[in-house]
Amino acid sequence: MFSSIKLNEDEKVYIQIKNYIKDMILRGMLQKDEKLPSTRELSNIIDVSRNTVVNAYEYLKEEGFIYTVRGKGAFVAYSKITSQEIWNIDWENRLTDYAKKAENMDIVKHEKVWTKGMISFKSIAPDNNLFDIEDFKRAFLNIISLEGDKILNYGYAKGYKYLIEYLMEYMKNKGVDVKNKDILITNGFTEGFEIVLSSLTKEGDNVICENPTHNTAIKIMRLHNLNIIGVNANNNGIQLEDFENKLKKSKAKLIYIIPSYHNPTGMVMSPEKRVKIYEISKKYEIPIVEDGFNEELRYSGAHVSPIAALSGEGNSVIYVGSFSKVLFPGIRIGWVLADKNLISYMESIKRSKNIHTSFLDQAVLYQYLKEGNFDKYMKKARKVYKDKYEFALKCANKYIPCKKVYGEGGLHIFIKLDNLNARTLLDSCCKKNVIFTPGDIFYIDKNGWDTFRLGFSRVEKEDIEKGFKIIGDEIKKLNSIKVVE
Amino acid sequence: MFSSIKLNEDEKVYIQIKNYIKDMILRGMLQKDEKLPSTRELSNIIDVSRNTVVNAYEYLKEEGFIYTVRGKGAFVAYSKITSQEIWNIDWENRLTDYAKKAENMDIVKHEKVWTKGMISFKSIAPDNNLFDIEDFKRAFLNIISLEGDKILNYGYAKGYKYLIEYLMEYMKNKGVDVKNKDILITNGFTEGFEIVLSSLTKEGDNVICENPTHNTAIKIMRLHNLNIIGVNANNNGIQLEDFENKLKKSKAKLIYIIPSYHNPTGMVMSPEKRVKIYEISKKYEIPIVEDGFNEELRYSGAHVSPIAALSGEGNSVIYVGSFSKVLFPGIRIGWVLADKNLISYMESIKRSKNIHTSFLDQAVLYQYLKEGNFDKYMKKARKVYKDKYEFALKCANKYIPCKKVYGEGGLHIFIKLDNLNARTLLDSCCKKNVIFTPGDIFYIDKNGWDTFRLGFSRVEKEDIEKGFKIIGDEIKKLNSIKVVE
Repeated sequence: MFSSIKLNEDEKVYIQIKNYIKDMILRGMLQKDEKLPSTRELSNIIDVSRNTVVNAYEYLKEEGFIYTVRGKGAFVAYSKITSQEIWNIDWENRLTDYAKKAENMDIVKHEKVWTKGMISFKSIAPDNNLFDIEDFKRAFLNIISLEGDKILNYGYAKGYKYLIEYLMEYMKNKGVDVKNKDILITNGFTEGFEIVLSSLTKEGDNVICENPTHNTAIKIMRLHNLNIIGVNANNNGIQLEDFENKLKKSKAKLIYIIPSYHNPTGMVMSPEKRVKIYEISKKYEIPIVEDGFNEELRYSGAHVSPIAALSGEGNSVIYVGSFSKVLFPGIRIGWVLADKNLISYMESIKRSKNIHTSFLDQAVLYQYLKEGNFDKYMKKARKVYKDKYEFALKCANKYIPCKKVYGEGGLHIFIKLDNLNARTLLDSCCKKNVIFTPGDIFYIDKNGWDTFRLGFSRVEKEDIEKGFKIIGDEIKKLNSIKVVE
Repeated sequence: MFSSIKLNEDEKVYIQIKNYIKDMILRGMLQKDEKLPSTRELSNIIDVSRNTVVNAYEYLKEEGFIYTVRGKGAFVAYSKITSQEIWNIDWENRLTDYAKKAENMDIVKHEKVWTKGMISFKSIAPDNNLFDIEDFKRAFLNIISLEGDKILNYGYAKGYKYLIEYLMEYMKNKGVDVKNKDILITNGFTEGFEIVLSSLTKEGDNVICENPTHNTAIKIMRLHNLNIIGVNANNNGIQLEDFENKLKKSKAKLIYIIPSYHNPTGMVMSPEKRVKIYEISKKYEIPIVEDGFNEELRYSGAHVSPIAALSGEGNSVIYVGSFSKVLFPGIRIGWVLADKNLISYMESIKRSKNIHTSFLDQAVLYQYLKEGNFDKYMKKARKVYKDKYEFALKCANKYIPCKKVYGEGGLHIFIKLDNLNARTLLDSCCKKNVIFTPGDIFYIDKNGWDTFRLGFSRVEKEDIEKGFKIIGDEIKKLNSIKVVE
């Protein structure tokens, strides 16, 4: 039995021996009180040093699987018990509507997925190749030697103090008056937005947003059973007249707005329009939740303040920011800046949901930022993305026959087709190994069937051109079929 | 104006100059189109190299705060706009019941907090001093050079593949049959438990748990508006007769159980009792949610399988595990092991809540575990905690007059007083700079007013003795007052 242990080179030998014996015990092949071979015998059988076996036995004893009797040897301490009859539950029948809805709206599960050899324009995640891993490593080593034991133990729900202070300064540098405001650190935008909704809305409440808007925001609002009222934002961004009408009638609890490099349209709201949005919201006393999405990516032109900066000393704008969209999404750090008292409630909600965001990640990010790496990184990233954006725009105009190409920067452009269904197009492009995100998922009504989003951040220029050309060819093909019909 | 820049040594000089000018622009002290001093002039004024000023101006331009005209110099690109009238919202009036409830049940906000000089027995977090920072650092450096760019970008909602595989093996090593099961990685136990509740319960549903039980679990169940049915677990752990009665009548959706080093009583459920709990649950077809809390900390005696191991091929036990309780709580890694299909729904819920748990943390933890550090750490930790536990038990028996001292190991003991209110005791101990956790927060009814929990993991032996002595003295004092009254 013991001679059949197969040792590999990946793992420490004593761990392999330990696990092998444990497995035999757990599977009932070694019975309770059965004697194990002596360490000398076993070391001969499997041809390892006796010390290694001694070590393995020690851990088995430590973990309660064997016991030793002085002068007699080692014995099995465990007896396997399992229930005789198998008890299976039909979980499908026990799931809540919430679970089914979450699964149903999970685009990762229901949309086309990338397979090898495909050109995918689905992602708007940053390009890994731009990450300055060495700077990140240095920041990690610096902070871990400064306070490694502390940041590896429990922290505070509101977040890592120094990161919060840094972000307060960061928001001040965007023109936001931070007096009487505070910051809650969250696991990215998604959690931040969900906590805002949990604080201020309940089932059936009205909320207002641009239509189209960020699909994850739509998903979260739907999972909260909110009544979503969309303001037309199809052509030149949000329509002010429609906006005011909807505010007037709706008694909405919140307005959700993405002013910069809007997802999916890629539009940037002008400073003048931001002021108007703010003034109208004030008139009807409906607070604004501003999504700081990709605001960091501004390629050119004058600095545009977030709406949160317009409110001055006022407390009526909630700003949800995230580094995940431009820098290290894998570490999931976002923040909510809002009225101090409101943040205090959100802090308790955060604590009830997952105690706090990883303190290691917060501390390393803080150190990375403090060491001045972010400016350096953004300078490089902006240049690369600007270049890609301009190239993508050129290619889109050259190859893709459509009604309009949207997008003023960021990591994606948005296409409105000329009376062609984007999902039909996706099906035929997919056969040619090109995929993208159909636009309908960004709409809260039946619109958007003729639109799609092209993310280019992680696609090489060569493939951008190749992919756009294929999309263009497929459009032409589908149009010619239509004409013939 | 520029001569008043004060430079510190913490931050890079060009960043300080950049932020100073940005601040003046944002505060409206430099107007749109106003000319800035030339780089040569400014470098003379503040006595830094011209290159540093050039660098600062470049970033200001990059960020859209200034523009340059060839041969003429640099000018302000930004004009400050803020709303004239201040708009303040009275957030208190807009909060949901959920937010108020979360704040209300937030013990961090409403219980006594540690201040300098106090001996606190509140924490049951692991002792930082036991963390092997060097091993953790090595694991980080190894994984970051292997796949740093990948783990810093978006990952998968279910978790980091290699960590999941490792944990599947880990659960197998606890005797769990993992066939047709799967694992979801969560931000600690708290999030895991909340996702389980979201999947399987809705407002008003009945759920069964031990009374007393983990206060965070109570909080989450209450925030989900569940109807909590407590089974008496006061004296020798959960009472089987009461358990069966409650199951029979309740049509509960779930049973929540902590079999090892129960929080707060510190009791360990015997293998025989685990089998009975399982068999009764099977009889009434109510699934068990098993909290693996501190199961890793077993100090001595034979290995005891989790209830999840009893179900063999069956799929009716959901196991929620966490490393946060014994190792690196700061990185917030827990997991749910359950039926494959059920996990797939939970994966979608997880994605909707925060996309995924930090991939950096998951990958570093995986590497740390793979390199065999966990066994080594646990061996050391068990020894230290066992020693502390025995010492704490001895001190409790010696100094604290009470009805009963509970606890068979773990990181805490639990005291039942003899007709004395634990909060009264806490008030007087607090004046002597000793604090602990009053037991009532672990009860779902009015019981537990005469109990409290003493966590000793982060307290030095000397302070354990000193603190327990003070508690004992205060009890005697309060008892003598009672007698006099």
